[in-house]
Amino acid sequence: MPGPARAEPGQNSYDVTRWPGGDASEDIGAVINAIIADIKTRQQARDAGDGGKPGGVIFIPPGDYRLRTQVVIDISYLRIVGAGHGFTSSSIRFNTPPEELSNWHEIWPGGSRIVVDLAAREEAAFLVRREGNPRISSVEFADFCIDGLHFEARETGGADAENSYLNGKTGIHVVSANDSFRITGMGLIYLEHGLKIDDADALSVDNNFIAECGNCIELRGMGQASRIANNLIGAGYRGHSIYAENHGGLLISGNNVFPRGKSSVHLSGVVRSSVTSNRFHSFYPGMLVLSDGASENLVSANHFLRDREPWAPMLGYDNGLDDLFGLVRIEGSNNSIIANHISQSLPPEAITPDGATSIAIRVATGAGNYIANNNVVGTVAGSSSDEAPNSACFATQVGALLSAGDAAPLDMRTVLIDEASAGNTVLFSGSDAEVEMDRSRNAFFATPVPAAGVTP
Amino acid sequence: MPGPARAEPGQNSYDVTRWPGGDASEDIGAVINAIIADIKTRQQARDAGDGGKPGGVIFIPPGDYRLRTQVVIDISYLRIVGAGHGFTSSSIRFNTPPEELSNWHEIWPGGSRIVVDLAAREEAAFLVRREGNPRISSVEFADFCIDGLHFEARETGGADAENSYLNGKTGIHVVSANDSFRITGMGLIYLEHGLKIDDADALSVDNNFIAECGNCIELRGMGQASRIANNLIGAGYRGHSIYAENHGGLLISGNNVFPRGKSSVHLSGVVRSSVTSNRFHSFYPGMLVLSDGASENLVSANHFLRDREPWAPMLGYDNGLDDLFGLVRIEGSNNSIIANHISQSLPPEAITPDGATSIAIRVATGAGNYIANNNVVGTVAGSSSDEAPNSACFATQVGALLSAGDAAPLDMRTVLIDEASAGNTVLFSGSDAEVEMDRSRNAFFATPVPAAGVTP
Amino acid sequence: MPGPARAEPGQNSYDVTRWPGGDASEDIGAVINAIIADIKTRQQARDAGDGGKPGGVIFIPPGDYRLRTQVVIDISYLRIVGAGHGFTSSSIRFNTPPEELSNWHEIWPGGSRIVVDLAAREEAAFLVRREGNPRISSVEFADFCIDGLHFEARETGGADAENSYLNGKTGIHVVSANDSFRITGMGLIYLEHGLKIDDADALSVDNNFIAECGNCIELRGMGQASRIANNLIGAGYRGHSIYAENHGGLLISGNNVFPRGKSSVHLSGVVRSSVTSNRFHSFYPGMLVLSDGASENLVSANHFLRDREPWAPMLGYDNGLDDLFGLVRIEGSNNSIIANHISQSLPPEAITPDGATSIAIRVATGAGNYIANNNVVGTVAGSSSDEAPNSACFATQVGALLSAGDAAPLDMRTVLIDEASAGNTVLFSGSDAEVEMDRSRNAFFATPVPAAGVTP
Repeated sequence: MPGPARAEPGQNSYDVTRWPGGDASEDIGAVINAIIADIKTRQQARDAGDGGKPGGVIFIPPGDYRLRTQVVIDISYLRIVGAGHGFTSSSIRFNTPPEELSNWHEIWPGGSRIVVDLAAREEAAFLVRREGNPRISSVEFADFCIDGLHFEARETGGADAENSYLNGKTGIHVVSANDSFRITGMGLIYLEHGLKIDDADALSVDNNFIAECGNCIELRGMGQASRIANNLIGAGYRGHSIYAENHGGLLISGNNVFPRGKSSVHLSGVVRSSVTSNRFHSFYPGMLVLSDGASENLVSANHFLRDREPWAPMLGYDNGLDDLFGLVRIEGSNNSIIANHISQSLPPEAITPDGATSIAIRVATGAGNYIANNNVVGTVAGSSSDEAPNSACFATQVGALLSAGDAAPLDMRTVLIDEASAGNTVLFSGSDAEVEMDRSRNAFFATPVPAAGVTP
Repeated sequence: MPGPARAEPGQNSYDVTRWPGGDASEDIGAVINAIIADIKTRQQARDAGDGGKPGGVIFIPPGDYRLRTQVVIDISYLRIVGAGHGFTSSSIRFNTPPEELSNWHEIWPGGSRIVVDLAAREEAAFLVRREGNPRISSVEFADFCIDGLHFEARETGGADAENSYLNGKTGIHVVSANDSFRITGMGLIYLEHGLKIDDADALSVDNNFIAECGNCIELRGMGQASRIANNLIGAGYRGHSIYAENHGGLLISGNNVFPRGKSSVHLSGVVRSSVTSNRFHSFYPGMLVLSDGASENLVSANHFLRDREPWAPMLGYDNGLDDLFGLVRIEGSNNSIIANHISQSLPPEAITPDGATSIAIRVATGAGNYIANNNVVGTVAGSSSDEAPNSACFATQVGALLSAGDAAPLDMRTVLIDEASAGNTVLFSGSDAEVEMDRSRNAFFATPVPAAGVTP
Repeated sequence: MPGPARAEPGQNSYDVTRWPGGDASEDIGAVINAIIADIKTRQQARDAGDGGKPGGVIFIPPGDYRLRTQVVIDISYLRIVGAGHGFTSSSIRFNTPPEELSNWHEIWPGGSRIVVDLAAREEAAFLVRREGNPRISSVEFADFCIDGLHFEARETGGADAENSYLNGKTGIHVVSANDSFRITGMGLIYLEHGLKIDDADALSVDNNFIAECGNCIELRGMGQASRIANNLIGAGYRGHSIYAENHGGLLISGNNVFPRGKSSVHLSGVVRSSVTSNRFHSFYPGMLVLSDGASENLVSANHFLRDREPWAPMLGYDNGLDDLFGLVRIEGSNNSIIANHISQSLPPEAITPDGATSIAIRVATGAGNYIANNNVVGTVAGSSSDEAPNSACFATQVGALLSAGDAAPLDMRTVLIDEASAGNTVLFSGSDAEVEMDRSRNAFFATPVPAAGVTP
């Protein structure tokens, strides 16, 4: 992965630490912009011998690089590549008392690490923008770290700033329609918006580590035929781990999405797309939301777990939704929800509103949804998590996860179909008692119940 | 990714731009062959201190490289790696009027780009061939682009040449039995055959962009235990996006396969294999074909969408199949088709033959197939797509995708079992009216229908 | 991928072949340890301008490197990266007669290949260990080969040593709690333990080739939110291909796991985890084992094939389990087994104990398991495989796989629920005759049977 001895024009390969016209450690943004300008100067012929503008690769060796100038990418075929995603939990670090912290081995993320330090908070660290045709193509970000450093709580007046998930910072923002981009192996940390891509076609977001961001992945505008796969993702309580709007043919698969996240996946107006073979974990309802007419989507072979916040510093926060919202929420038609496992583990007193029965899958509006062979498991969790000490975060979290085996059952409404929705089909996704719907307007086969006297 | 200052024999690392014996921009094929010869010269001992022939890595920096000499690989452990897959849509470019094109930023693919320019069209750009034992192992292609430049319509006499998907060119052809190969991050474009691998064992084809090729991925001969996963793929109307024959234990998962493609996946004589968690989009019937006794395969958690060609230049082409062929076609036994979503959106007048009801899943021959919990959604699409302007390709396509929410239902034959097939089981994959089969020779449970008066 | 001309401290990039203080080909372990020491010397400030300890990258060019000193990693953000996973089958090589071998092109694995040659067999080649806080983070291993060279049969007194899968060697062992590690593109071969990671959080093991090891992947201790995905894996008959204990939220997806392996996947005390979209192949029962109270896991969209050992040198070995153990074995509660395909192809005389009916899914203990829409296919295989010649290994294996189409059916017990387990639900996973359970204590809907006279 390391770069050449010196950027040589003929090779279209650059190393930010060896660019003669700047100091990458002081402002990697200015250096990358200068390199892009160099590529554009050297690659002016559109059609020279069946080629002409192959783009280039910019290598970022491991190191800390301050970014004081926004990078603006307006050429196709540019690859920016580091040698380490560099994630570490800044959230744990900022919730550790200073006296403990003084013994820590290191306190910052690392790898090929860009420290976002733009005067204009609203600017993305990396902006991709090009008007005209063709759409900008095949820009690649790989194997480096973008770190927003601190949350700042501008909206909350500074209270509990580092836990606010607010700092206005964005890691990568693609604002122009784009084709065949690849984002792989990246680490995005402590950014209000990690990755924001408008109008994507055939995008791959694969094998990244995007966590402790306000929002992790946002596909805005409209788009098609893209993949968000094989990532480790976890947003803060305010934002989305994965958000997409007006996309068709989006494939979200193989991701491990951990808390917190206002939602694990929110698809707004997304159609004919897939959410398959993912693992989702959340501390709040509203894990998967299909809204604004999201239709003809497939949700299959996913594992959903919702349990309770186990970590003291975050106990004061949630996404504001109560347990009637649904862990999976559908406002759209002709979606298929098949062969998913949904676990919820809560102390009954934590369920809101008081006395309510939690809802696993709620069809709020729409028709023709097909909900089949989903298994919902509710279990009663102890309420000791309030006392989770900061220093035992990992063991506490895993301990909470591992409490599954011997827990008492928790009543769940496995499926609720609202009056506003009809013409749906619910098969083997809950017993007759667990499913609430107008059976004269929707079709239903109940999961059979093992004989009385048997405690599942 | 960039290469060393100079190929140094002790390091087994080469950079095509720094090889002293040739000009990679004029003929990268000759340079790579010379490098392979150098590796072979230096690595002659089969057993020198528990090693001896570790192979090497050949780096291709971003740039345009003409390939006038076929590369022949006959050593194991060779990795050829670039720094950019470089895809852009040549199909859009070649269907754009010259007067518009003159304003384009760039007109060719890029990245680490190989321009295939062999005098003998039938030769693959990269040929892997070695007789004897052991099978050639661990050859890797990564992160570069192979561009066939133009389609040529040799069979059609030149009419609409660039839309013919014919030029005789092949990107990579492995003709000898092989083990543990990896193809990752590649871009293959405008080749009649993108990737053709005979007799593969434990092959990985992962995270590539293989599109606008006559055929994208072809596994020929026989093979086992391979993976085609996490790719973006889309062949032309003549060929297959993914084709495999006589394979066992093939795993096709996590791919986003877009139109056109004569088929999205065609498995001929393939057994005990998986097609799971993919997203498929096609403009024709015959999206997934299990033929020639394909048996004991699992097709699960896939999203299928078939709608109408939205792009004017391609309106004259299709794969010649009518709507009775089946979107999913089975000619084999004991296959499992479980938990898939199948959408079809067409104007009724586009369905052929006239007056026919389209078939989602057709079991033409074979027995013991298990078809369960598939949801088929038919919707009526408008017919305005004929007028799709070239310049609005992306928005038009996405617009067509997004039309799902409010469409009227389209009658579908969700499952048809031919007289030649019996002993199959169909569960909850269509209502009694939607499934056509001899119920005395196959087993059937109907999807229940929401009560009359409800429009799903 | 190749490295820079010389390790320059400012760049944090190293090439093992250019490190001045050692000879990587003689002892790469000593060289890497010296490089790590250099990084630690140069990166001492914990907080220097919002950074300070970014780590580094160590590049291993293709070549054979003996490892005589254990590598000890105790810094975060270290990436060790090669340019080739270098797998070849040592198992075939060591079972090939010397007279044939003399004609082979090569006899050892290759790529960026580390030859493990530690005097203390019990030491891992790469040991990751750091006490204190924070947990060591973002160590990455990529694209190189770790070869254990020989199996040694210390426990068996040397008989059939190279087929013993015993040599005490471990490729990578992470003993300290760790966060956000990545293992990608590696080749691990002929090690008793390939990859052993204790106490993992947010680990990615993706796109590796780990085969012909005693055990391939072992996640020990406890852990959460990790991914084992997109790998090619196959352990020897003694050990596990994938083993995990006390993990929550583990996602095992998209793997192609081939024989042999005492188990393909063994999850001990693992909860709320996923096994989805994998392909599993085994020659023994006990392919997927959920034990020690493994609960609330999802097993969906997987293909299981169990057939008979086709290769002469391995005919004397198995995992000691008989056919009543279950191909899928559950000792735990509230697991979901949905939409899987299970094939078994055996000659009836190979089934043990004599006269037994093989069991596909066995729930030995636990309650509340949900087993739905699994299709079990049993077929009678010929017994000619005993005569499989060594030299035709590939063709023989594929031939065995391809025998699916025209085989006679083999009776299977598709689901067995033991008396010790109750409160489970079995839906459409076998006919009334094929499922054995106490129907008064578990719920059941039978797969309907095609009408009499029809042979599926």
